[in-house]
Amino acid sequence: MSMMIDYERDAEIRVRYGETDQMGYVYYGNYAQYFEVGRVETMKSMGLSYRELEEKGYMLPVREMNVNYFKAATFDDLITIKTKVVSLNGVRLLFQYHIYKEDDLLCEGSTTLIFVKKETMRPVAPPSFFVEEISKYLKK
Amino acid sequence: MSMMIDYERDAEIRVRYGETDQMGYVYYGNYAQYFEVGRVETMKSMGLSYRELEEKGYMLPVREMNVNYFKAATFDDLITIKTKVVSLNGVRLLFQYHIYKEDDLLCEGSTTLIFVKKETMRPVAPPSFFVEEISKYLKK
Amino acid sequence: MSMMIDYERDAEIRVRYGETDQMGYVYYGNYAQYFEVGRVETMKSMGLSYRELEEKGYMLPVREMNVNYFKAATFDDLITIKTKVVSLNGVRLLFQYHIYKEDDLLCEGSTTLIFVKKETMRPVAPPSFFVEEISKYLKK
Amino acid sequence: MSMMIDYERDAEIRVRYGETDQMGYVYYGNYAQYFEVGRVETMKSMGLSYRELEEKGYMLPVREMNVNYFKAATFDDLITIKTKVVSLNGVRLLFQYHIYKEDDLLCEGSTTLIFVKKETMRPVAPPSFFVEEISKYLKK
Repeated sequence: MSMMIDYERDAEIRVRYGETDQMGYVYYGNYAQYFEVGRVETMKSMGLSYRELEEKGYMLPVREMNVNYFKAATFDDLITIKTKVVSLNGVRLLFQYHIYKEDDLLCEGSTTLIFVKKETMRPVAPPSFFVEEISKYLKK
Repeated sequence: MSMMIDYERDAEIRVRYGETDQMGYVYYGNYAQYFEVGRVETMKSMGLSYRELEEKGYMLPVREMNVNYFKAATFDDLITIKTKVVSLNGVRLLFQYHIYKEDDLLCEGSTTLIFVKKETMRPVAPPSFFVEEISKYLKK
Repeated sequence: MSMMIDYERDAEIRVRYGETDQMGYVYYGNYAQYFEVGRVETMKSMGLSYRELEEKGYMLPVREMNVNYFKAATFDDLITIKTKVVSLNGVRLLFQYHIYKEDDLLCEGSTTLIFVKKETMRPVAPPSFFVEEISKYLKK
Repeated sequence: MSMMIDYERDAEIRVRYGETDQMGYVYYGNYAQYFEVGRVETMKSMGLSYRELEEKGYMLPVREMNVNYFKAATFDDLITIKTKVVSLNGVRLLFQYHIYKEDDLLCEGSTTLIFVKKETMRPVAPPSFFVEEISKYLKK
């Protein structure tokens, strides 16, 4: 099973003081958490609750992450995380992210998540309720 | 059951870049993690594995934390966390911490942890293997 | 100079996945960052920008923190941080926090911050624009 | 200026409780900090202090990061970060990382850092003391 998805959603975050480092900008490792905020809000807005997935015995660990940093975010900046659901390919779910401060692209990235069974942590086909729900957003 | 304990142990940490903030020093919230490193190493050196406790169905959430910050740690500093086990009082386990950079006292703190059952998260008496082990370090 | 302040402000946060630990709840060290979010939003709503303070050469490191943990927050919870500005006493600025999930009090805490000069990191009287601004919120 | 480097160094880390998430494994975003620990130790062992670079007015922000996650690390695991310095290409410094738990490869990644001037945050050629030092490790 392989499907291309066409869904995008914005999430806003205000940069916290503790997310900066002594360079005076957001620490590069913290963008993974920003991506996660975008991902969670995006899935929720599609009717796909991550919390519910876990309660039903599924987990979605990240298998791959790629990030390009263009400009740095600073403390108290209001930034927008544009999250795109790109595809569901077997057990693999691909997201793309673009983080903006107003019109400036600060960073782009992608993550591949895989469906696993909670007890075994082995890859498993996504549950049918998930496939059904995400199929509403197929790329035309 | 109430016992005063007399045990102290040093743990060393090198400050990571990502632990600083834009003030140029370690972010104040990161000391909780330093305390935890001291606590885990100290318990382990007493023969009390925190990992084993969890495997046997117990958890030790923090119920209270107090911190006094005197001097700031900076990136790449080698700091020493002196952890003292102070008392086991019913379900409450009290630790004290002093963090040094060479002879400079950077910070002191304390945490009270409580024993809870994993399934219920309700307070529970510490398991007998734990009480037996910690009794070897009673204050005279 | 010592003044009692009467000002309180709510800030909302949604708990991030990366803020939990393997106990299944928010890691105890992360509440320091929640307090900071409350503090920054509260100061801003009083017309006191923390960013501006730094630009004018002042810093406000935390000198003391106390936290009591009552109930745990979980992933995706929407929590409210009620931040109270309590007093400005010489160089010391005292905040109190109560974190709620709906009607449940999860945690309470306090932090004492001190005004320091950026170049020297030595305590210094708060700038007059700050004193003037905060004087609008004196406790009657 | 483009040079291929041949240098590798191991750093060890013990996984902290606060680095796990509710999945029971190390949060995927924390590997960026592990890479940084490997990077800092590796540069130091080559005679290249990151702290010194900053003091001389240079910064090395991360421009790109790629991570592949194979197996998860758990609390209290002792893990080894194998850091390889791959190349210095103009302003770009490339590192590769392999993180092991005993013989298991948990994760591999790479980061590209770029030299910038502290005041301007604009790309700048690496200082001559750095080039001289790193030239001792040229790939044959």
